[in-house]
Formats: sequence, structure tokens, C-alpha cells
Amino acid sequence: MIIESTIQKTRELVGSWRKDGQSICLVPTMGYFHDGHLALMQEGTRLADKVIVSLFVNPTQFGPNEDLENYPRDPEGDAAKAKQAGVDLIFCPNVSDMYLDEDQTVVSVEELSKGMCGDDRPGHFSGVTTVVCKLFNILQPDCAIFGEKDLQQLLVIKQMARDLHFPVRIIGHEIVREHDGLAMSSRNAYLNSQERESALVLFSALQMIKKRVEETQEHLKSAPLIEESCRMINKQTGCSVDYLTVVDEETLQAKERIKGNCRVAGAIKINDRIRLIDNISVRS
Amino acid sequence: MIIESTIQKTRELVGSWRKDGQSICLVPTMGYFHDGHLALMQEGTRLADKVIVSLFVNPTQFGPNEDLENYPRDPEGDAAKAKQAGVDLIFCPNVSDMYLDEDQTVVSVEELSKGMCGDDRPGHFSGVTTVVCKLFNILQPDCAIFGEKDLQQLLVIKQMARDLHFPVRIIGHEIVREHDGLAMSSRNAYLNSQERESALVLFSALQMIKKRVEETQEHLKSAPLIEESCRMINKQTGCSVDYLTVVDEETLQAKERIKGNCRVAGAIKINDRIRLIDNISVRS
Repeated sequence: MIIESTIQKTRELVGSWRKDGQSICLVPTMGYFHDGHLALMQEGTRLADKVIVSLFVNPTQFGPNEDLENYPRDPEGDAAKAKQAGVDLIFCPNVSDMYLDEDQTVVSVEELSKGMCGDDRPGHFSGVTTVVCKLFNILQPDCAIFGEKDLQQLLVIKQMARDLHFPVRIIGHEIVREHDGLAMSSRNAYLNSQERESALVLFSALQMIKKRVEETQEHLKSAPLIEESCRMINKQTGCSVDYLTVVDEETLQAKERIKGNCRVAGAIKINDRIRLIDNISVRS
Repeated sequence: MIIESTIQKTRELVGSWRKDGQSICLVPTMGYFHDGHLALMQEGTRLADKVIVSLFVNPTQFGPNEDLENYPRDPEGDAAKAKQAGVDLIFCPNVSDMYLDEDQTVVSVEELSKGMCGDDRPGHFSGVTTVVCKLFNILQPDCAIFGEKDLQQLLVIKQMARDLHFPVRIIGHEIVREHDGLAMSSRNAYLNSQERESALVLFSALQMIKKRVEETQEHLKSAPLIEESCRMINKQTGCSVDYLTVVDEETLQAKERIKGNCRVAGAIKINDRIRLIDNISVRS
């Protein structure tokens, strides 16, 4: 496995792969790998001849009061795990190479970036789409894999790739969970043991709605179920709801009734310090 | 020469060229070719193995009160001229293929798009950068040529390509002029004979400043020269100044004094109906 930080050398390497007719899969990450990341990498090895993992804590997707400075990092541990997963190249550029002096170009997906995490994190998704656009242009992958935990991010990137006619297939990968159901996230590293216990309430609240839907033949109204879930979360020590919503799986439009392919998606804050997200698929 | 409107077939053709190791130059146009366009195409044949001309009247770069509907079109004449110039492919997509249903992705260059034409035409440059981004992703050229008449457009696109790490070299081509100095433009087709005569005042006003600068060893102040030029234009029958400015050639920052590599750039309206732009290089 190669680890490369310069754009120029990475372009040369990727160019030589392309010349040999090798297909390329990109797994964009911010590092601090958990089993969710590794599942994406392993899926990459099944989809393409070469797997590139980009490891870049992208400053433009963090708000001014967010955790950019403290975002957990472990480049050596990450390299060992990626190698084990069958990755061919870790691309870990410097911020000043990705965002050159006087950088002023922004890629934004206007509608899908609104609502849900877009409301809590203004500018977040245009930071994501801008950096993914840069990565696509540098690495020219045939496909790219994103986790479904960040459902809105996945759909925003699909939309961007489609609208801008990027020749890159965008693939979503199902959420990987801890044994008790907590969605894996690099940010789980922030949780102390009490918080770790509280954090599970988000998944429980989503599951509660799924169970209610499965118990009935009706197309249930979303509002009362959301209210019940929010109460459940806000009762948990240190937890507060950022948002909880039932949306269409493709368009992210809020659903008044649970009908068709829906996602129940939510974000919570723990002790006003740690923000976690999760979602589950509900069909009715 | 091939004429192709579908994205899929164009991708296949361009892919086969790339596989054969052929380099590709793109000349993006809105059609209605004049000698300025043809000079870009001929330059393209010197720079690359294959020259693609895109012919697409891009709706998103026109404002609501602009001339999208009336923009002059002559696809058959264009094809004959492009063939003569040595073009290999005219890519002429439909609007509904370039902008798919629910298209919502915008690429914008924030600072350079302000001022000059950006003030008169809000949203114009994000329309340009968005469509050029789509063209780059579909056609994957090694280089792309743009005329210097649209100086701000050229610099905005250079900035976009640099910031987003597109592997495309952006090349400016000097302005091609009629015998009397009028900058060639498809919009010159709107001019009646009286207006055609009036239109020349823009070039004369720019030249006047250039001459004043060349006559002196000093770094002249811009403001009095601009005022004099504006008076000259506004005195001409039917003509009014949209803007006239002295800017740094690279950054488009307004220059208080004419010093270094500057451009004097302007836009005029003729009979409130036809908008023409021009610029000229001034060194001191």
C-alpha cells in the first residue's frame, strides 16, 4: 500500500493505473478508521481493481464552533487498518494543497443541502461537495463509496455527480453498527462511558418508530411518532434532539405519513458537546 | 467532422480518442461563429490532436431580461465553418440533457465574479462556471481555449479550474477585431448600420487611454482617464457606459494608477438593447 500526500505524484500514479486499464474506487474519509470505514474499503476491493482512500480532515465542512481542531486523528493506526482491508493508496493531502491561496470556488447543491443537518450546520454540505469535487478531479475514480449514516451527504453527492456529469458512480453503503446498535462514527471516540450509554437512545428512538410501523397495516402519521421519539431522547441524561424526521429515501422531502420507502433520520447532541447522527429505513 | 448531440455517444467517442493516447482541446462556444471563434479553433488544432467545439446556448448564464430567446443561431453555417477550421467534433447537447430534471448544483467563483460584468449580470458567471464544469466532466479535455474579449470569464474559469483541481489547462486567446477595430462578437449581428458605427466608440475610448499612457513616463491616475472615456462614449448616439475600469490583468482588482500589467475594460449598451464588451492591454 502506498501513502502519498502530494497531488502531483498521486496524479502520476493514478494515471499509470488508468493507462493499464485498471478501474478505480475511491473511499473519501476524514480518517480515524472504524469498522464502518473498513467495510467501505472492503466493498471497494470487490468493485474495482484499485482502491484509493482519501484521508483529509476537510476544514470547509466544519462550522466555526465545531470540532475541527479536536477531530480525532491516528494516521499510523489508519494506515495499518487500510492495508489490512486491501487498500492500494492512501491519499492524504495537505490543506494548503487542496485549498490553494486565494481559493474561492464553491460547489453547492442548493435544495438537498437544506433541512436536516443543513439547518444545524450551515455551509457544511457546500464544504463537502467542494472537496469531493476536488478529489474527483485529482483521483478520477470510476466509483466512490459513502456510508449511509450520512444519508443527506450521500444524496447531496449523488445529486452533484449527476448534475455536473461526473463520470463517477456514487455508491451508498449500509450503516455498520456496534453490537448494541450504536452507529459507528469517529465521533464516538469523544464519548465517556456514561455518554456512550446515553448515545444509544438515538438508535432506540428510531427503532421504536420502525417497530410501530411494522406492527400496523396503516400508513401512520409521522408527527405523533416523532414527538414520542423526541420525548424519549430528551428524557435521556445529557441528550437533546437536534432534529428527528421522517423523509422520502430519495428526495429527503418530509413525509406527513409513513408510506413508501422512508428513512427515519435524526441528530442528537450529548452534553451540548458531541453531535451524533443516525437513520433507519422504514417501509410501509 | 462529427456532429453529436448525445452525451453518451460523445463520451464513447472521446473515450476512444483518449484510449488511443490522443490529446484533446475544447473550444466552448454558444455558436454563431465569427473569425474570433475560428481563430480559437485553429489554435486548438495546433495544441492538441483532436479539437472539440461545444455549441450550447447556456440558459443559466442569461439573466431574466437578457437575450436568451433571440441569441443568434446558425447551426448549419457553424458546422461548415468549424469543419473548415479543422475541428473534429461539434458537441451540441440539448438543454434538458445538460440540465437534468431537478438540477440544483451550482459552481461559483466568489470573488472574481464580483464587479465588472458581474455587477451588471448577477448570476451570469455562476452560470458560466457551472456549464463549463459539466463540459469538462463530459469531454475531459487536456486544454480549453477562451477568448480574451470576455476577460473576466477567462479569469473566472482559470480560477475555477485551479481551485477544483481540474486537469485542464486554460488558455486565453487574444481578441480578434474587425478591420476598424470593433471586437468580434456574435452580438454584433444585432447592430444596424447606425449602431454598428456607434459601437466603435468603445474601442476608441479604450485606445484613447492606452495612447495617453504610452505618451507619458508617469504612472497616470485612472480616474480622470476613465471619466474622459465615459464622456466620449456617452456623447455617441445611442451609447451609454455600463462600466469602464482599469484593472490588474490577473486579479481584476481596480487600479488607482496605471502601473504594471493592466487591462482597460468596458461594457456599453447601445440603444438600451445591445450590450457589448471589450478590453485592451496597457503596460506602464
